[in-house]
Amino acid sequence: MSETVRVTFVDHGAASKGSSVLATSGQTLLQAAHAAELDIVATCGGRGRCRSCRVKILKGDVPPPTVQDTVQLGHEAVRERFRLSCQTKLVADCTVLVAPPRAEVGHQILGAATRFLPDVGVPLDSGVEKHVVVARAPTEERHQTSDLDEVFSTLGDDLSRNVPLDVVRGLPSILRKQRGLITVTTFKNAIIDVEAGDTSRQKYGMAFDIGTTSIVGTLLDLDSGEQLAAVSDMNPQATYGGDLMSRIAFAQFDEKNLATLRARILNAINRFIAEACSQANVAPEHVYKIVIVGNTCMHHLFLGIDVSYLGLAPYAPVVRHPLVVSAKELPLKAAPNACVCFLPIIAGFVGADTIGAVLATRIDESEKIRLIVDIGTNTEVVMGSRDKLMACSAPAGPAFEGGQIKHGMRAAIGAIEAVAIDNDVRCKMIGDAPAIGICGSGLIDAVAKMLDAKILDSNGVLRREHRESLPPALRARLRDTENGPELVLVCSEQAGNGEDITITQADIRQLQLAKGAIYSAILMLQRVMGIVDDQIEELLLCGAFGNYVNINSGLRIRLLPPLPPKKITYAGNAAHLGAEMALLSESTRDRAYAIAQRIEHVGLAEHPDFQDLFVEALSL
Amino acid sequence: MSETVRVTFVDHGAASKGSSVLATSGQTLLQAAHAAELDIVATCGGRGRCRSCRVKILKGDVPPPTVQDTVQLGHEAVRERFRLSCQTKLVADCTVLVAPPRAEVGHQILGAATRFLPDVGVPLDSGVEKHVVVARAPTEERHQTSDLDEVFSTLGDDLSRNVPLDVVRGLPSILRKQRGLITVTTFKNAIIDVEAGDTSRQKYGMAFDIGTTSIVGTLLDLDSGEQLAAVSDMNPQATYGGDLMSRIAFAQFDEKNLATLRARILNAINRFIAEACSQANVAPEHVYKIVIVGNTCMHHLFLGIDVSYLGLAPYAPVVRHPLVVSAKELPLKAAPNACVCFLPIIAGFVGADTIGAVLATRIDESEKIRLIVDIGTNTEVVMGSRDKLMACSAPAGPAFEGGQIKHGMRAAIGAIEAVAIDNDVRCKMIGDAPAIGICGSGLIDAVAKMLDAKILDSNGVLRREHRESLPPALRARLRDTENGPELVLVCSEQAGNGEDITITQADIRQLQLAKGAIYSAILMLQRVMGIVDDQIEELLLCGAFGNYVNINSGLRIRLLPPLPPKKITYAGNAAHLGAEMALLSESTRDRAYAIAQRIEHVGLAEHPDFQDLFVEALSL
Repeated sequence: MSETVRVTFVDHGAASKGSSVLATSGQTLLQAAHAAELDIVATCGGRGRCRSCRVKILKGDVPPPTVQDTVQLGHEAVRERFRLSCQTKLVADCTVLVAPPRAEVGHQILGAATRFLPDVGVPLDSGVEKHVVVARAPTEERHQTSDLDEVFSTLGDDLSRNVPLDVVRGLPSILRKQRGLITVTTFKNAIIDVEAGDTSRQKYGMAFDIGTTSIVGTLLDLDSGEQLAAVSDMNPQATYGGDLMSRIAFAQFDEKNLATLRARILNAINRFIAEACSQANVAPEHVYKIVIVGNTCMHHLFLGIDVSYLGLAPYAPVVRHPLVVSAKELPLKAAPNACVCFLPIIAGFVGADTIGAVLATRIDESEKIRLIVDIGTNTEVVMGSRDKLMACSAPAGPAFEGGQIKHGMRAAIGAIEAVAIDNDVRCKMIGDAPAIGICGSGLIDAVAKMLDAKILDSNGVLRREHRESLPPALRARLRDTENGPELVLVCSEQAGNGEDITITQADIRQLQLAKGAIYSAILMLQRVMGIVDDQIEELLLCGAFGNYVNINSGLRIRLLPPLPPKKITYAGNAAHLGAEMALLSESTRDRAYAIAQRIEHVGLAEHPDFQDLFVEALSL
Repeated sequence: MSETVRVTFVDHGAASKGSSVLATSGQTLLQAAHAAELDIVATCGGRGRCRSCRVKILKGDVPPPTVQDTVQLGHEAVRERFRLSCQTKLVADCTVLVAPPRAEVGHQILGAATRFLPDVGVPLDSGVEKHVVVARAPTEERHQTSDLDEVFSTLGDDLSRNVPLDVVRGLPSILRKQRGLITVTTFKNAIIDVEAGDTSRQKYGMAFDIGTTSIVGTLLDLDSGEQLAAVSDMNPQATYGGDLMSRIAFAQFDEKNLATLRARILNAINRFIAEACSQANVAPEHVYKIVIVGNTCMHHLFLGIDVSYLGLAPYAPVVRHPLVVSAKELPLKAAPNACVCFLPIIAGFVGADTIGAVLATRIDESEKIRLIVDIGTNTEVVMGSRDKLMACSAPAGPAFEGGQIKHGMRAAIGAIEAVAIDNDVRCKMIGDAPAIGICGSGLIDAVAKMLDAKILDSNGVLRREHRESLPPALRARLRDTENGPELVLVCSEQAGNGEDITITQADIRQLQLAKGAIYSAILMLQRVMGIVDDQIEELLLCGAFGNYVNINSGLRIRLLPPLPPKKITYAGNAAHLGAEMALLSESTRDRAYAIAQRIEHVGLAEHPDFQDLFVEALSL
């Protein structure tokens, strides 16, 4: 029989005394934490496949370690009462230390620099218009009329007569406040708001990119295109799995879990709206249009659409059309009838974010062949020109975000982001803080330098035979463990968390799988379209991670095709920029629809050549 | 300081022991009853102007009678501890008897006879269509698609791509249930539902007439036009006032009261939908279209639209357009995206019900002049032909429904509905039960017969000078009281409630005001349009009350213009029939819009001739 047990969670180094919750014996520690709304990150979705959810049992009975505990944490840590919280079933009252030294502070999220979007050549035709008119309340002289008739009589005849009920409800008092001076807000031919007085200058919109890992949002003035505020944070769904497949598995055939994920993202977006509006001193009721991009899974989860079949072959989305929903229907806390526009979707794993990136980079208008690589846990690749566009996706996995890498972490303060190897190893950390782990760009840089230093061969094997010829300091950093060889990047004395920071043989395998997935996707599009490297005019690196990759290191490890470095450009958060462009411009939003209908999707897994290409792409 | 007091309400003759509620001293008994959700009818809206809310204090301190108590109930009743519950402020614990002998059982509401509407010549083009198609879930072969794409690929290209979110959410499971066999329901060019399997035969709609006093609803098969169920009941808002002005006064500038009235009507309509569907063994989810008519006030209250200014000159509505709202938005418990269509409104007191009556009687297509008289607490009159249509409204008040008539009651069992006077007075009661009061048609008949018997003169004065020449039995029935003369129709020994049932001089004045209002409205339209009696081809009596009026008596008391009786027709519940026609036929619903734009409204009160006409119309 299950019993009630008390679990006390203590934050590492936190001032707080920890929070105590009641749970049921047999539950895992992770479940108990989530039930109590305590965020423990479970990058692999609680399947014992990564170390992100590890905790230390400070007091109370420690259940025996599982195989996953030992594999992920090693014998020593297990002896020191470290456990994976997803694998640890509660047996008795206990106190656990969460957020081990890996706590990620100041995670870099690629936001959007403040700029005027018209600079990038977007017409300002947001579709939102404000009309300041005087619409007097009906009087004795004009008796066969209504409040709404009086409003319409001041406006053009091409407006839809079906006005939202809440707008109608507000009319009587609004018309009688400022002698009939009102501001009518329209989106295309529909009235979406009526306010007392002249509010014509308050016309705002927001653009969001909802990524698997992080969310970026900006508040724009729809008249000038000026960016008034930018907000970004981690996607709060991450506690339920770091990659798309974990997120899907959690929600699959489980309406309650789907609702949980939906609530998390909805609350986050509402918090962002409030935050951005507060930064810019804008009333959320004056946000009339919101454009949202995101991969197909994030899109569906946000809308509460079942993702069960998105996780099963042929990975088809439920809807690809560019949906438009009113804010009150979701509900988002903006103007109640604000139009929330979702850009269209191409396929199950090539979503609205890719459409955003195409909009921003304009490769659909390009004369020459260009290539977008939007690196993330799911990486999308689009290749082509105004004549033809093809896209595919590669499940790169969370390695570039620190997932399933022994000392992996996100690009936060204390993460190794660059590595130099000569007689010894020198590392550069984000924020110049003591090292506590290594992030994706650091990993790529480290592996590139290890190749140059001949510590590593092109098959990704940490070489033992040449060790004797290495400089002594370097040689000392290479060591063998029960799980194979590893290179010590920062030794425990210098590290911020008192642990040796290493790159293991297994880490290099994970990196190879990730970069192999991406490069094989590029190779596949080249093969299907018959495009050789020389024909590629430009390669655009997009996305949060892509923009921090050292291009030379990326080329060195064969993450990218062998192009001259000058042909490779950082394109920033192109998906989000595309969302901003569609926010400011209905003609651009129309272009998004046209692009979605044009792009041909190539399914990697079902292509007969894929296995060969993947093997070719694995080598360094 | 206010104290808590306990009030026990006991039903007259009810088996139950009564319910006990806590109230605050200083509250009125009526307020205490409403707070406890006990329905005490307050026809005048709790202003002490009628007797409908009277109660008898059985136990506890009786507060001293107010002027209104004495005027409405008389000295004797007040001595017997009768009080108006709207005037009685609580002072201490008490037990009160509610629903005095006037309890109205089996009230006649004019429903709609079972019939096939196509018989009255309505095209069957409801706008709702069901398409049975096979839309397979995406497979490996067709990978660049979505569930929704697969649905669209089986349907025509003219459908809107913006599908309601709840429909999209349901697609994944529906498409995978019966090998892709689905039924797609559309309203005009919009998808409103998708179901698994073939449900093409389940296509229903409902038509409602929301009157001030009663509500009538029918369930129709949209394919055949057959009426499958009919429901009707009192409007549950009546406890907050019997006529429009009382209802408006209650909700005026008080959002909470507006919400109360809205909730009452919404709950009633939802109950009716459930009841009708249960009668016909139909699932409410298969009700896809609902057409609603009602006067402007009922229309606004149902939609939660502020009626504050509807009660103030120039009595303008907030909206006159034919609104279409989804069921889930209101919310009505039908198909979530069922289209709830409100017919348009002409003016503040000539509403969608009048449009319904015009649709049903087709006077907008008539070659000759015809006249609609829809009698109710607010009476609407429409006159004209296909060349010109004019309308006006007359506040007849609740006299015809028993309001403000000493022994008045609604047309329920025990109500006097016809009267014969020769040597004595003989009365016919509804249900042939012992008399407990007199209803509107009985009142008109009684007054007509009193005129014939020369008891009454054409000025409405109960004559004293000729009494000596009357037969003795009749003479005995005429008596003088402290409040003036009255005629005893049924004496206490024969009455069902042990009281003499009388018609008082004051009752006759009320009748004159009511019928004068109606006849003056007709005279006004005749004057404005220059139409003499002979030009009127037909007078159509509509509405719950109009259909029970004895035509000869109506002519005798000058309720109606002096036309040959054969020109006067009972048109049934024409407003509701019009709603049914618009339900079955979109072209008819379009006609409603055209009619609303054509009809000219004449405001009675502001017309300079009105006073003269009203005085002329008062005489009998």
